[in-house]
Amino acid sequence: MSTLRRMSYAGKKRKLDKTRQDRVYFDSYSDVTVHEEMIADYVRTNTYRTAILKNSELIRGKVVLDVGAGTGVLSIFCAQAGAKKVYAVEACSIAEQAVEIVKQNNVEDVVEVIRGTVETVELPEKVEVIVSEWMGYALLHESMLNSVLYARDRWLKAGGLILPSRAELYITPISDPVVEDRLYFWYTVKEQYGVDMSCMSNFARRCIKNSDIIVSNVAMEDVLSHPARFAELDLHSVTVEELRTVKGRFTCESFGSAAVNAFCVYFTVTFPCPEKPHSLVLSTSPFYPETHWKQAVLYLDSPVEVVQDTPFSGEVSMFPSEDSSRHICIHVDYTIGEQKEQSKTFSIPDWTAEPQP
Amino acid sequence: MSTLRRMSYAGKKRKLDKTRQDRVYFDSYSDVTVHEEMIADYVRTNTYRTAILKNSELIRGKVVLDVGAGTGVLSIFCAQAGAKKVYAVEACSIAEQAVEIVKQNNVEDVVEVIRGTVETVELPEKVEVIVSEWMGYALLHESMLNSVLYARDRWLKAGGLILPSRAELYITPISDPVVEDRLYFWYTVKEQYGVDMSCMSNFARRCIKNSDIIVSNVAMEDVLSHPARFAELDLHSVTVEELRTVKGRFTCESFGSAAVNAFCVYFTVTFPCPEKPHSLVLSTSPFYPETHWKQAVLYLDSPVEVVQDTPFSGEVSMFPSEDSSRHICIHVDYTIGEQKEQSKTFSIPDWTAEPQP
Repeated sequence: MSTLRRMSYAGKKRKLDKTRQDRVYFDSYSDVTVHEEMIADYVRTNTYRTAILKNSELIRGKVVLDVGAGTGVLSIFCAQAGAKKVYAVEACSIAEQAVEIVKQNNVEDVVEVIRGTVETVELPEKVEVIVSEWMGYALLHESMLNSVLYARDRWLKAGGLILPSRAELYITPISDPVVEDRLYFWYTVKEQYGVDMSCMSNFARRCIKNSDIIVSNVAMEDVLSHPARFAELDLHSVTVEELRTVKGRFTCESFGSAAVNAFCVYFTVTFPCPEKPHSLVLSTSPFYPETHWKQAVLYLDSPVEVVQDTPFSGEVSMFPSEDSSRHICIHVDYTIGEQKEQSKTFSIPDWTAEPQP
Repeated sequence: MSTLRRMSYAGKKRKLDKTRQDRVYFDSYSDVTVHEEMIADYVRTNTYRTAILKNSELIRGKVVLDVGAGTGVLSIFCAQAGAKKVYAVEACSIAEQAVEIVKQNNVEDVVEVIRGTVETVELPEKVEVIVSEWMGYALLHESMLNSVLYARDRWLKAGGLILPSRAELYITPISDPVVEDRLYFWYTVKEQYGVDMSCMSNFARRCIKNSDIIVSNVAMEDVLSHPARFAELDLHSVTVEELRTVKGRFTCESFGSAAVNAFCVYFTVTFPCPEKPHSLVLSTSPFYPETHWKQAVLYLDSPVEVVQDTPFSGEVSMFPSEDSSRHICIHVDYTIGEQKEQSKTFSIPDWTAEPQP
């Protein structure tokens, strides 16, 4: 859905003051493209819909809070599941469209759209259910999880339901052929135009294999091991303090011979489900159908050759960037086979530079 | 080549001070992606190469200035064509790679890379030839043409050669199916998820059919008339003052029945050529192979039905944005068939907002 507007960019860092950050954050949800992409993401929207409808016994007759409601689609699912009242809290101007959509679906008696941040709005009552689609790239990049936890602590009755109720983070080594193709490109220029540009390959390596987190779809066949879970967040109990650093150790073993040139980080979120198997998972794994979250790719400085069963181990830490608290950094300490431990810290670039022809 | 890094974005306007503008402009050429895209653009690079080699009689033994040399590839083509000396002037840090590439091709006696802007560098002599790849999106967006004209007036000997020597701008009405598909998407949501979101279509129309210039590849079959040339720039005579507004009238007639929903603007540049047909054209027309410039698409507020031979007429003006002098605006006054004249002003958005999952 975002194919109309694609660009190559040169990642730039820029310090934004807090107000400016929040304005960019809330404004950027007003453009239709991002909502189109989210609604058109069938894995996302249909898993939420299924989770809400399957939990209708726990939702029917109850009061629900939708944190960051956007176009209000999850709130309407809750109304369809029999909720008595849904407070759809949305800070950005898309709340105006949510009001229209609620009317168009004849649920304005149930769904009340409230424009504001969940930290500042006053609800007339506590709620029995919180629903939210708060996940960002690599789970925590520009995520609304802190707001969901605030809402839980302030508005959720004891024993209430949170949808989703758990999040898990995974890491796996991969062999990304595109980056090696891009480096090799510079060796092909001489044949094409009679100018030897092979020395650009080193520069390209420094530019491409930098510390940016690249959000892209990893092909299943490029994954080199069973993914390793390195962190789990229980949304009923995790605290804002604990989110300041989300970290955990991992171990895995290579599927076969390959050159590892990156790690891939992705997440799942899990909904409780009264039916067997008692849970429903929204997965952004490269082994499952694509979502608009894709995967987070972290390039190593140079590829490492591995063989069947070469062990990988290490620790991943995720924490907010100093420049912008909504931007996530991922630090990886890792050992591959007999190599000594290496470390690299990655961050999602600001897309503030301009594309150039 | 830019497929690794694609994003959807919400266009934002931001005033940049002049220094910041220039820094962004020069810095963004340092990333390898943009150079990879330019070198990998076979139409671009091979047309320059052919034009330089075919003009070798005029280049052999002569002094050449390459304005905005980048990786230095055009300078090396000139050395291969027999230039006595090539000054490769490049303001950004890619000049360091140009130095390496020049050495790797054993032309360091001929090609001298000079880091600086052409407005500030001092050359030891006047030149007989200026070569430059200065064209931006829609020809003039963030283009270096002013710098080329400065170089011409300051450093080119009377009767010298400029490659390319002419630029032409074209407009044609098109019927873009993607935008209508995107608007229709909101009517399909109810069937998929049981929530009627058709009222989002109006919001989507306002967001998508805004005044942004969209840079994308127009399919040949979506073009609705023979393109009309509305401006021509002779690089030997055009002045910086004349570039403040580039404008011209156009008329064309519809190929058949369709709903016009946009105009497409594109350019060609022409090189003199001693061989027949005495010129060589680098075209970014939708009827020719794709280039990294693609085309500039300007959406009308609503589609207009036309039939075979429906006349289009109007005037196009291109001028720098008030916010940022390197950003181009395109104003179109147009009449379609019996409709009264309409006007719309478009601009290339700043890609400064952040992508959001």
